Amino acid sequence: MKSFAGAPGTRTGLTLRLAQCLFSVGSIASMATTKTFFSFTAFCYLIASMGLQVIWSFGLAVMDVYALSKKKVLHNSILLSLFAVGDWVTATLSLAAAASSAGITVLYFDDLGGCSLGEECTKYQMAVALAFLSWITIAISSLIMFWLVAAG
Amino acid sequence: MKSFAGAPGTRTGLTLRLAQCLFSVGSIASMATTKTFFSFTAFCYLIASMGLQVIWSFGLAVMDVYALSKKKVLHNSILLSLFAVGDWVTATLSLAAAASSAGITVLYFDDLGGCSLGEECTKYQMAVALAFLSWITIAISSLIMFWLVAAG
Repeated sequence: MKSFAGAPGTRTGLTLRLAQCLFSVGSIASMATTKTFFSFTAFCYLIASMGLQVIWSFGLAVMDVYALSKKKVLHNSILLSLFAVGDWVTATLSLAAAASSAGITVLYFDDLGGCSLGEECTKYQMAVALAFLSWITIAISSLIMFWLVAAG
Repeated sequence: MKSFAGAPGTRTGLTLRLAQCLFSVGSIASMATTKTFFSFTAFCYLIASMGLQVIWSFGLAVMDVYALSKKKVLHNSILLSLFAVGDWVTATLSLAAAASSAGITVLYFDDLGGCSLGEECTKYQMAVALAFLSWITIAISSLIMFWLVAAG
């Protein structure tokens, strides 16, 4: 199982986890430094969801580092099922957060004829783009994990 | 495989497909009968995404009916992989559409202090709720299909 790219305890798996952390932290940083995000429920939800993503991915990254340093393979089926469920839940929450924020961003930029908040506008777009990147990486991890559990 | 609840060619599978069609058609009907949906990109995207969902789920429902009437089991691995990919794509699009529309609905109902469009507001909420119900049923189908492919 160790040779399966993206599985827990592999270099690819660790890279995916670090990418998830990086994109999520970037998204939070970009959104939280705007002055008006708290007026929008979807933007607050984006921060909460990305925060959960960071905690989850960081925890699994630490586990990957431990497994790599001890040259241990993580193929405990209960642990893998837990990872698969966690990945699926965080992936769903991240996509929902990214999409709802994107809906509002598009509303302000296109439907209402342009965003008038200056620098804030770029930050909103950046936060949404990073949230989608974070979702792509967690979706890959989630599919790999689900495959590992199902293939037994 | 025929006894696996929710697999293609089973009664549960057919029920899930019909529920997906029903919820998606309801969501489209509720959104398309409002007079202002075309002003919002997210609402137009919801209609497009739910339309794709109806076509996909109806096609698979017809296949399920055929398999049930001929008492055939659909366990061709290429066909199953195609269903798994299609289900995953439509599930992702449905969740993104439901979440982006929900973001705008919450913006109008809560963040901007209440929706002032009268009957339209109820229709927006109804369309979003039905889109989420449609996503839940397609997500179940998608997980079952992916499990069947991975367990091979």
